[in-house]
Amino acid sequence: MEIINDEYYMKLALDMANRSQGQTGVNPVVGAVVVRDGEVVGLGSHLKRGTPHAEVHALNMAGEAAKGGTVYVTLEPCSHYGATPPCSEGLIKAGVSRVVVACEDPNPQVAGRGIELLRRNGIEVQVGVLRDEAIKLNRKFIKYITTKLPYVTIKTASTLDGKIASRSGDSKWISNEVARERVHTMRHRHNGIMVGVETVIADNPSLTTRLTVPGISPIRIVVDSKLRIPDEATMLHDGAAQTVLLTTAQASEERRDSLTKRGVQIIVCGEGPQVDLRLGLEKLGEIGVSSVLVEGGGRLNGSLLQEKLVDEVILFLAPKLIGGLNAPGSFVFDGFELMKDAVALSDLTVEQIGDNVCIAGYPVWDAN
Amino acid sequence: MEIINDEYYMKLALDMANRSQGQTGVNPVVGAVVVRDGEVVGLGSHLKRGTPHAEVHALNMAGEAAKGGTVYVTLEPCSHYGATPPCSEGLIKAGVSRVVVACEDPNPQVAGRGIELLRRNGIEVQVGVLRDEAIKLNRKFIKYITTKLPYVTIKTASTLDGKIASRSGDSKWISNEVARERVHTMRHRHNGIMVGVETVIADNPSLTTRLTVPGISPIRIVVDSKLRIPDEATMLHDGAAQTVLLTTAQASEERRDSLTKRGVQIIVCGEGPQVDLRLGLEKLGEIGVSSVLVEGGGRLNGSLLQEKLVDEVILFLAPKLIGGLNAPGSFVFDGFELMKDAVALSDLTVEQIGDNVCIAGYPVWDAN
Repeated sequence: MEIINDEYYMKLALDMANRSQGQTGVNPVVGAVVVRDGEVVGLGSHLKRGTPHAEVHALNMAGEAAKGGTVYVTLEPCSHYGATPPCSEGLIKAGVSRVVVACEDPNPQVAGRGIELLRRNGIEVQVGVLRDEAIKLNRKFIKYITTKLPYVTIKTASTLDGKIASRSGDSKWISNEVARERVHTMRHRHNGIMVGVETVIADNPSLTTRLTVPGISPIRIVVDSKLRIPDEATMLHDGAAQTVLLTTAQASEERRDSLTKRGVQIIVCGEGPQVDLRLGLEKLGEIGVSSVLVEGGGRLNGSLLQEKLVDEVILFLAPKLIGGLNAPGSFVFDGFELMKDAVALSDLTVEQIGDNVCIAGYPVWDAN
Repeated sequence: MEIINDEYYMKLALDMANRSQGQTGVNPVVGAVVVRDGEVVGLGSHLKRGTPHAEVHALNMAGEAAKGGTVYVTLEPCSHYGATPPCSEGLIKAGVSRVVVACEDPNPQVAGRGIELLRRNGIEVQVGVLRDEAIKLNRKFIKYITTKLPYVTIKTASTLDGKIASRSGDSKWISNEVARERVHTMRHRHNGIMVGVETVIADNPSLTTRLTVPGISPIRIVVDSKLRIPDEATMLHDGAAQTVLLTTAQASEERRDSLTKRGVQIIVCGEGPQVDLRLGLEKLGEIGVSSVLVEGGGRLNGSLLQEKLVDEVILFLAPKLIGGLNAPGSFVFDGFELMKDAVALSDLTVEQIGDNVCIAGYPVWDAN
């Protein structure tokens, strides 16, 4: 049974923030609720970069009713002039008497300033209500704002013995329909999607977001060290989303020019022969890609893991055993010498999705 | 909340049966409850081969009170003279008025006869209360009684990418303490435990059941095509349980004799070079091994799977990714050409055990 308290309203604010995942670009998702005398009087969330913050929308809706009220906001109100005036000032002007904040601004250079400004102006501020949920919701934003590197999620679908295809390369179908539907939700919530060129050659995927309702398709990123992407690849023609190719100096200039003329963005990541993935992510971060969903094969997964570039791993396991010494695995790399050096996943969640099992967690890099 | 009905008493009978798993040898586990005028008046379970059946114990306890009562029994009462007189006759003599049976005798040659005999004698019989639970409880017995082959359970512990050791062979530790405790419960509930000789050479395991309370250690079975088991292997000396070696005609007669003299049973399974596993299981069935827990490496697991000899698979997955192209996998075999031919597991159960995930299911052989 629900109990009406601070968490009750903060949950609504988090829920509103959650529903905007995928549409705020490099900005965080934020929700705000204004309550006065036991009544919800204002609701808002940050919808898009360059548009008003959650608090502004909520105060607008509340109008005069905000005066003396409490504002629940999932992220510390900003204190600096950016695309919009600082929210802290807006809250002060509106005359609210109490502000409840789920978590501080993740940017250490400004964290606490908004809260301080409110307190200096006589507003009661409480921090930390549903903090963990709020942090989890903005993991992508926090990674990007603190490191300038995109948040990297690896998604794989394998058998219970860790194979993503049979020895002959057959992979139809490992995961079930419901699991595949989840993937489109993940695509909507990342602003980049990454595959290796082998996947493009083998499957010619469109890598768009296909839901039962309209969704947002992420930027398509192909790791293609020698620009072997076929001219007839769907993603070079369909105009469904921007396409970026990560390549190396070993790709011919002629090929680069020809692809650039077709509207594809080429990013050279090192001398080769392999794409320098860290450099690639840095350059993606520079052009505003704050999160990448990796749907590549085992080799791309393995390379990213080996270079400690992975923030989240989502494994769909089908209830099958296929064997095959050379059947491709979900993470293909040299591997670690000792079991204790294996990459551990923390905060594991396990969910049965029909006959599939979805196991998700966050690689712990410091422990290694 | 519990509701008192037929299922309520049958649950108790099933619970008593369950607690005897591992001690009845090739016999089923069975529980019986006698109820009269709303009171439990008799309890019984089958404890050991050659000792009274569950119904006999329960009727003994009930004495005169059984008259006019209802008997709940998890398996159809027997109708034939075996080590003990038929239970159906006992129930008739005791004057019970109603018998509730969870499931029919799995032996198709006698199924229904006990029920028929009761009905012919004016006793009301109801069949099928908690049938699925009763069948599940006696899966091992049903397999053995209908095929004369032991029920084979494969237990593995692997990383999320399906590796049971690192590329250097290191496997300490994949699973956690709690998962390892579960394994000893599994050992108690099987009457054979199987490993490959490589495991004996590498780890010199004792393969006994170690619980916080006394447990039953299964017969130890080593798949050892050339009798390479080291003379100093613990299981040849400790006397903790019988040891059986499955070998081939390629093992020298001298070695066979020397091991036999030490009290080890040698079973020759084919001409070699590999042990004929199906033949081995047939011969194990002949000497009364009705269930085998396989704790072998990936190669033994793979061979058993490839030969469709597996009845149950229990996978402990540690939240780790280790990689390594040559790191040993949980099921090492040639594998299937197409994903649709992979061995599917049915009735999947998924459980989080600390930071491990336990996935268990039953291979579906007909679908392939």
